[in-house]
Amino acid sequence: MLVVMDAGHSPQQLKEVVKRIEKMGFKAHVIPGANSTAVGVTGNAQPLEPSLFENLPGVKQAIPVSKPYKLSSRDFKHGDTVIKLKNGLEIGTDRLIVMAGPCAVENEEQTIRIARAVKKAGAHILRGGAFKPRTSPYAFQGLGVEGLKILAAARRETGLPVVTEAIDEASLEAVYEYADIIQIGARNMQNFSLLKEAGKLDKPVLLKRGMSATLDELLMSAEYILAEGNKQLMLCERGIRTFSNHTRNTLDLNAVPVIQKLSHLPIIVDPSHATGLRDKVVPLSRAAAAVGAHGLIIEVHDRPHEALCDGPQSLPPDQLKALLAQLKAMGKVLGFKL
Amino acid sequence: MLVVMDAGHSPQQLKEVVKRIEKMGFKAHVIPGANSTAVGVTGNAQPLEPSLFENLPGVKQAIPVSKPYKLSSRDFKHGDTVIKLKNGLEIGTDRLIVMAGPCAVENEEQTIRIARAVKKAGAHILRGGAFKPRTSPYAFQGLGVEGLKILAAARRETGLPVVTEAIDEASLEAVYEYADIIQIGARNMQNFSLLKEAGKLDKPVLLKRGMSATLDELLMSAEYILAEGNKQLMLCERGIRTFSNHTRNTLDLNAVPVIQKLSHLPIIVDPSHATGLRDKVVPLSRAAAAVGAHGLIIEVHDRPHEALCDGPQSLPPDQLKALLAQLKAMGKVLGFKL
Amino acid sequence: MLVVMDAGHSPQQLKEVVKRIEKMGFKAHVIPGANSTAVGVTGNAQPLEPSLFENLPGVKQAIPVSKPYKLSSRDFKHGDTVIKLKNGLEIGTDRLIVMAGPCAVENEEQTIRIARAVKKAGAHILRGGAFKPRTSPYAFQGLGVEGLKILAAARRETGLPVVTEAIDEASLEAVYEYADIIQIGARNMQNFSLLKEAGKLDKPVLLKRGMSATLDELLMSAEYILAEGNKQLMLCERGIRTFSNHTRNTLDLNAVPVIQKLSHLPIIVDPSHATGLRDKVVPLSRAAAAVGAHGLIIEVHDRPHEALCDGPQSLPPDQLKALLAQLKAMGKVLGFKL
Amino acid sequence: MLVVMDAGHSPQQLKEVVKRIEKMGFKAHVIPGANSTAVGVTGNAQPLEPSLFENLPGVKQAIPVSKPYKLSSRDFKHGDTVIKLKNGLEIGTDRLIVMAGPCAVENEEQTIRIARAVKKAGAHILRGGAFKPRTSPYAFQGLGVEGLKILAAARRETGLPVVTEAIDEASLEAVYEYADIIQIGARNMQNFSLLKEAGKLDKPVLLKRGMSATLDELLMSAEYILAEGNKQLMLCERGIRTFSNHTRNTLDLNAVPVIQKLSHLPIIVDPSHATGLRDKVVPLSRAAAAVGAHGLIIEVHDRPHEALCDGPQSLPPDQLKALLAQLKAMGKVLGFKL
Repeated sequence: MLVVMDAGHSPQQLKEVVKRIEKMGFKAHVIPGANSTAVGVTGNAQPLEPSLFENLPGVKQAIPVSKPYKLSSRDFKHGDTVIKLKNGLEIGTDRLIVMAGPCAVENEEQTIRIARAVKKAGAHILRGGAFKPRTSPYAFQGLGVEGLKILAAARRETGLPVVTEAIDEASLEAVYEYADIIQIGARNMQNFSLLKEAGKLDKPVLLKRGMSATLDELLMSAEYILAEGNKQLMLCERGIRTFSNHTRNTLDLNAVPVIQKLSHLPIIVDPSHATGLRDKVVPLSRAAAAVGAHGLIIEVHDRPHEALCDGPQSLPPDQLKALLAQLKAMGKVLGFKL
Repeated sequence: MLVVMDAGHSPQQLKEVVKRIEKMGFKAHVIPGANSTAVGVTGNAQPLEPSLFENLPGVKQAIPVSKPYKLSSRDFKHGDTVIKLKNGLEIGTDRLIVMAGPCAVENEEQTIRIARAVKKAGAHILRGGAFKPRTSPYAFQGLGVEGLKILAAARRETGLPVVTEAIDEASLEAVYEYADIIQIGARNMQNFSLLKEAGKLDKPVLLKRGMSATLDELLMSAEYILAEGNKQLMLCERGIRTFSNHTRNTLDLNAVPVIQKLSHLPIIVDPSHATGLRDKVVPLSRAAAAVGAHGLIIEVHDRPHEALCDGPQSLPPDQLKALLAQLKAMGKVLGFKL
Repeated sequence: MLVVMDAGHSPQQLKEVVKRIEKMGFKAHVIPGANSTAVGVTGNAQPLEPSLFENLPGVKQAIPVSKPYKLSSRDFKHGDTVIKLKNGLEIGTDRLIVMAGPCAVENEEQTIRIARAVKKAGAHILRGGAFKPRTSPYAFQGLGVEGLKILAAARRETGLPVVTEAIDEASLEAVYEYADIIQIGARNMQNFSLLKEAGKLDKPVLLKRGMSATLDELLMSAEYILAEGNKQLMLCERGIRTFSNHTRNTLDLNAVPVIQKLSHLPIIVDPSHATGLRDKVVPLSRAAAAVGAHGLIIEVHDRPHEALCDGPQSLPPDQLKALLAQLKAMGKVLGFKL
Repeated sequence: MLVVMDAGHSPQQLKEVVKRIEKMGFKAHVIPGANSTAVGVTGNAQPLEPSLFENLPGVKQAIPVSKPYKLSSRDFKHGDTVIKLKNGLEIGTDRLIVMAGPCAVENEEQTIRIARAVKKAGAHILRGGAFKPRTSPYAFQGLGVEGLKILAAARRETGLPVVTEAIDEASLEAVYEYADIIQIGARNMQNFSLLKEAGKLDKPVLLKRGMSATLDELLMSAEYILAEGNKQLMLCERGIRTFSNHTRNTLDLNAVPVIQKLSHLPIIVDPSHATGLRDKVVPLSRAAAAVGAHGLIIEVHDRPHEALCDGPQSLPPDQLKALLAQLKAMGKVLGFKL
């Protein structure tokens, strides 16, 4: 922490700052300057909150030097986190994991049909929404537990592990029972109660970045889960909200190498929600693989004109197959497997 | 809904669009143009989802003409919603309602002391956090139910009704028991499960705008509460996330007259969270009153240097008092009471 | 400047950083910490660029402690800048200056008619565009020098000083000849060549904030003008670009008190371009006055249905008159004159 | 254009709208609805401005159905624009063009040294700034014409064509004389006078997207150049300004396939300015190639610790070489050459 004093601070105010730092058990280093004076704080094991100093008289700003997250940081754990599913599949290695399936579970026939198609196309994991967080209360809200049972049936049929979203504590319990990976959606990234509950479970969690979350905030939300004991955590970039209006969101691929430098957690990319447009999903999937993502999560529907939600962004299975063939060839050049 | 066809659509594709509209029981109006053809849809009682048409072959875009919200719209209810608290205080009239108090309930002595101070300064309602949604799991998370009991004690002491935040279903039940107004915070604006639960209660709700929520989304979240039966709802603008970095958030005062044109719900402004800076709270409070807000919610602390959270943005009681005197004088010119 | 070292930096790298600082003639203060080491730099008269240190091996980040602007800063000049026009009118005092007029000068009759109307309503300065920077090359681009002559005629008729925009060096010369205040528009805020030219002139300049400019960048652009010698400079907040889509831009009223704390330059607010909607101009003008702006610049048209540009956001003269009466009454409460 | 009427419009107001449309020589199609009435406009050869209708009484909104740009649109020109340089190099084909070189021309020795290094690494074009638009008037502003002469010398030495930025009309003339491609930077994307001047020249132009420009605005700025006659135009995505703060800007790779669908103009990606961080340039370059960009523009410096600007984001030549080898191998899979 660096505490910067106001230009017109009094010597007494500076003394008070130093006293406060020392009272906390830390060391204060006064750095006098031509235009401004600053005080460095050292000796703190945990990051400090700027507000501890910013409300002192004569203080202009407190600049944190270390990051506020700990368990999600590479400083805490140097090797990469690798998540192992029950069927042996690992996430966080040099294998590019592909999660694919319909936006929403609509019925058993549709889900099993699409599950078979994505398996045939080469996907590793089945995605599908049973609990759907929808902007409008009048839109289709998902089949709920019925949908989870259908996903479990699709897993029995295809052997594909299942990732699906929990939206509150009740659905979390149900998702925990039926799914292989619990998804926490973008709108719940700062639903701290839900994060804490997910942190107490012993199943992998996929945490999506909020629409306007900084990466520091994403890692702080990860921290909520890790701090409760659940270390099987992966993150997901799914587009952020900007002024740019030609796609639904702006896919922030910068986030992938930044997260990989800061954190040991795997990072997945969702090009379907980031673009909202089918014909943009393929090029952005290639870009996500090229930038080094650990996996992709892609909406697939074989009859997009009939889809109950997100039809316009769903890829048909044959396009998924062609994409995965292309990614496989890219992987040979770039050093990843499919 | 206006369905715009691709430049190169086939006559058959246009026919399919018309057929689909008619199958839904609506009327299709084909509008041929030099460069593009469009189809107007009429006869729908409820707003339609663009995706119903955008995934049809040959369709470029579906542009909604009516708004997706209904119960929160002025088209549905022409007069203003006025919320009446148990002590008779009304929100949504020409009285500018002032909610004030500490960011967090720290202990009984602090809370009652500040409650008395804000009452003396002229505030109408006591605010104070018992459940605190914090970015960091290591930051002070609030006193919980203990904090609610303290707020109830402060109400007994001062007669001020209490507004405080619920962050999940468990805290919602507790807040319902102790508070006069239930706050749903910005991070939970799209926690739809929580909104539905709040919609089933018979106590007023203050719904804060999410950090990156459009006003349409805010009104859709309001719709979740209204649709469950709770009509005692007020909205709150508290700053949005932008690139602009000189204050914590960017207070979007445009939102006040826009909401007032679109909706019958009262709209409150929170200058404390919008700016994060004490010396900006006073001018922005004046601006919020001048733009026509129905109320203000302001963080106040009499010993900001000791505050457990948000000290740097808390107003001392004497500054609150001076501000309210100024607002009262402004009200005489602009036609509101305090 | 605070130079923060990488967690894994070598002692040699730290030495190199210290050496570099000392070679520049400054003093280095090493601050060892548990998790990270930082080096404070003092003795520099001018702010330093972070890149001077960030490209050294072992350096994580260089955090500037002082601001990069100088002439526009309150540290440089403590009193407020007051700009005096030829007719004696002062900008930057406790008088709220109102600039009003049509978006574009369309013809002499229209301009003089509106000039008389805004004068009658109580405005101090006539605004009107002769050179119009338009997004589309096919839109009306303004009357050019012919428009400037019309503005000069309107000044002769009404006595109102004239503010109008220059968009390049050629128009700058012409505007200098005819106008009382030279406007640099938002799209040219970082047209540094134009800023330098404006800085060499001896006429007041109104510099608008760019659509995505931080306030630091606005003050740096001001610095370009001040550094060339022209000290008659006022700034203008006119709305920023955000995700928020209910108004054309998001008026950032936080900027007003922030600029007033950082800088001695007057700050004007443009509610017309910020909202793009006539019925939002009045409440936002009140808010701008309440937050403490030094002036307003408002688009006015007496026949908005015929306006060649920005008709939907233009206020009719009678609404301007009513607004100014309200502002005058507010001023008595808040301590400003009209 | 679709004109949507207010819910409470009068029959007379509707008649006036229809009359206005017909007076313009177009056809009006009234579409009555349960909740709202709309009027479709057809027969217009050019896109219409919404404001032509939005300022009529009783009108709620005018929604443009066709796009405002024409010459830059695929509707106008179906095949891709291919730009041919004097040395025969083509931009806009299946060859991924690599432009590389220092941020700023510092001196002849440095420039020729780096030009040789980027040529050896496989780059096709030399980039280097002679006129530097800098946020601060106190930062290094470039060598000007002297820098252009050095670039010309580097071209003689290496045979590499040169791209460099013009920042105003004077520098445009000089850049025209010395360079092979004229760059218009992000800050000048809406400097319409400069665009018009560049449109009159017979040399290729590289137009960078503004920091907060929508793609429609980028294409409208392209329109300014094309409308003056210069058809040798390529666009450049270089990162946009968002709240996301872990990199200097947010690279919007969605823009590449979107532009390619809307326009026939080649689109280049600049990962150096988008990220501002050397170790992010390589993965984002791979992503840009994978998403289908026509080219890359990359800052390279062999002694980044000594660079006068942008050292921290400059790639050393050996990393450029390794990147280009990787891109070449990717191209074999994805169907492009290097």
